[in-house]
Amino acid sequence: MALYVMKFGGSSVGDTERMQRVARRVVEKQQEGHQVMVVVSAMGDTTDDLIDQAKLLNQNPPLREMDMLMTTGEQISIALLAIAIDALGAKAVSYTGWQAGFRTEAEHGRARITEIQPERVLKSLDEGHIVIVAGFQGMTEDGEITTFGRGGSDTTAVALAAATGADYCEIYTDVDGVYSTDPRIVKNARKLNEISYDEMLELANLGAAVLHPRAVEYAKHNKVRLVVRSSFNYHEGTVVKEEVNMEQGVVVSGIAYDKNVARISIMGVSHVPGVLAKVFGSLADAKIDVDIIVQSGVTDGKADFSFTVALSDCDKAVKVLEGIRSELPYEKVTSEEGLVKVSIVGAGMVSHPGVAAQMFDVISKQGVNIVMVSTSEIKVSCVIDGSKLNEVVTALHTAYGLDAESTAFVGGPQDRR
Amino acid sequence: MALYVMKFGGSSVGDTERMQRVARRVVEKQQEGHQVMVVVSAMGDTTDDLIDQAKLLNQNPPLREMDMLMTTGEQISIALLAIAIDALGAKAVSYTGWQAGFRTEAEHGRARITEIQPERVLKSLDEGHIVIVAGFQGMTEDGEITTFGRGGSDTTAVALAAATGADYCEIYTDVDGVYSTDPRIVKNARKLNEISYDEMLELANLGAAVLHPRAVEYAKHNKVRLVVRSSFNYHEGTVVKEEVNMEQGVVVSGIAYDKNVARISIMGVSHVPGVLAKVFGSLADAKIDVDIIVQSGVTDGKADFSFTVALSDCDKAVKVLEGIRSELPYEKVTSEEGLVKVSIVGAGMVSHPGVAAQMFDVISKQGVNIVMVSTSEIKVSCVIDGSKLNEVVTALHTAYGLDAESTAFVGGPQDRR
Repeated sequence: MALYVMKFGGSSVGDTERMQRVARRVVEKQQEGHQVMVVVSAMGDTTDDLIDQAKLLNQNPPLREMDMLMTTGEQISIALLAIAIDALGAKAVSYTGWQAGFRTEAEHGRARITEIQPERVLKSLDEGHIVIVAGFQGMTEDGEITTFGRGGSDTTAVALAAATGADYCEIYTDVDGVYSTDPRIVKNARKLNEISYDEMLELANLGAAVLHPRAVEYAKHNKVRLVVRSSFNYHEGTVVKEEVNMEQGVVVSGIAYDKNVARISIMGVSHVPGVLAKVFGSLADAKIDVDIIVQSGVTDGKADFSFTVALSDCDKAVKVLEGIRSELPYEKVTSEEGLVKVSIVGAGMVSHPGVAAQMFDVISKQGVNIVMVSTSEIKVSCVIDGSKLNEVVTALHTAYGLDAESTAFVGGPQDRR
Repeated sequence: MALYVMKFGGSSVGDTERMQRVARRVVEKQQEGHQVMVVVSAMGDTTDDLIDQAKLLNQNPPLREMDMLMTTGEQISIALLAIAIDALGAKAVSYTGWQAGFRTEAEHGRARITEIQPERVLKSLDEGHIVIVAGFQGMTEDGEITTFGRGGSDTTAVALAAATGADYCEIYTDVDGVYSTDPRIVKNARKLNEISYDEMLELANLGAAVLHPRAVEYAKHNKVRLVVRSSFNYHEGTVVKEEVNMEQGVVVSGIAYDKNVARISIMGVSHVPGVLAKVFGSLADAKIDVDIIVQSGVTDGKADFSFTVALSDCDKAVKVLEGIRSELPYEKVTSEEGLVKVSIVGAGMVSHPGVAAQMFDVISKQGVNIVMVSTSEIKVSCVIDGSKLNEVVTALHTAYGLDAESTAFVGGPQDRR
């Protein structure tokens, strides 16, 4: 007997038929002799629909009330799944985030988990229930309802697995596992059998939508064994774990891209000590995550620098910079959208010099300018013009020997069991 | 400055435009210098839609999970209303039932309130917030989410008014107030300026949909001053209070009807002591409310009796009776639907003999048989064939001098401000 967390995203529970399939799958797991916890997201487009309703009333709805609104999406899912499982004759009990013991900081819309009190969940498991927990949500010490931000249901699943000492945390999705790149762009992308937390973290951070980076970090930190697999078939998925058997000669494991990128440039900043600290301190205070930072050379005591933020933070970041202009004079601030960040990731990169140079070469052969570059021990990222994304990813995939012999199998609604 | 509870039903917040109208109305009240609490129901058909979704998965969904599911409807409403109020520049904060301190017994689907802890609501009022509370829901001691059953939002409003010492509890609806009868049936029904708790209770119990009987009881017990008025205009509504100035000669104040009636008959029950206690004790144990009970004469030591229950309880009641057959032999049980209960209500009835006789006369002149009769100090009810409802109500309305000089004004969407 093992203890499982099974997490199903919004598309896996998007309608009645899919909800029933998830219910069957969960009950099968229990019938195999395991204890089962399930984490579900809001059904299909529910979250987007709720946001649309709010925006009709208020272009800048208060975050506290948006959390109140959006948490209903997962609450509907957990109740319906419990109802579907009951119809199969198994015992299920659903819990909202606060009922399942998720305590968070008081940051609406992107709260971090501070503590999990799993007693109620464990008691229900002991009583033989399948325990269903609403993803993406928790409660502050003061009893305020919070959300973890988009993708937070993965975090719920991993955190629940860690808090209960689960043996496996299975993330069910609409693809068969983690791919060498996006199969929608590269037809012969390859499914990876296993991948390390660090590689997965880079891929997740870089916009591979299959797993939320916070969830991977949480899994790494708590040594939670993650499995990414399809909710539409029984193929083995991709195991994400600490140590991975390196295939001989594999340098790059995967290629990711991120369209959610805006570049902001500040021109003519007086080059005095503390400038960078002031700029990025102010952005951090406004809870804006900055990714790549590039500073150009200094001319006449003045410097230009550029950085990237998420598209949704772009206007806010520009406002923050305008707000500190009196303390930190500069000539102008510009922002640029329509960009994309392409990244190669691989734990083997460390011992293979020249990987970055090869990447720049492949990109330039596509006639594409590289706007910004960023590197770490296991990845190289280039920001380029978004219109050339497909050509660049395809060329890189081939150049690093990632092309599979046959076309990648991608599970989908047509592959139901 | 007064303290108000304003309650809006599902049709008052059925779409974006209506939600905005409610927001304006609530903000106006605050701008007049009052402290305002708002109770809202689920928008439009939300609750029915959720029930339909559940029934697609499970014909007998567990009540606990139905509560989990249905409480999302009100949670969506409170969040959207807070968001709409924020857009008007006022401060609002929304609370679910459990956040607002509603504690209930552990009876899913029809929980009674055991206690209200209003500290959080009062603190928010003191801070100048409009406090929005989700109707119809609470939490047990064990942290389980419960609902009060249909119409429970009225109860939430009255209970909140009682717990916070509110001066007024205004129930906003899609009609101008309490009418002498249903204006959809009798065109010249009359709006009542005031009515006593007892009369309202009879009318509410008898199926006048404007106020939930539990709410009226709660209001009577706690002397909460209720006002029933339209959310579509600013007409004065109907005040429900302890003492009402009797108009000279008014015997019958209103005529109500209830289509939610099934009759169950048990034939050939051995007439021994404790029979009635056994039958109705078993039904009470199954949480089935019995309304009218009629026992026929005893023949050969055996009796027949009939009683009415809500339509939705009919099958369940028959099963309960079949379950006790071994302890309490009878010949057969039958059930009958398609009936309606018509009632005349008036505090003045006590001092006017012959009111019931007049009712029977009016009904029989319509060629309608009376199936069952029930009386109290301030009402007479007759169960009749449902197909003759309109004729009977119209005839009674005229017979008791209730017809208004002009056609009743009924507020509706076309009467927006």
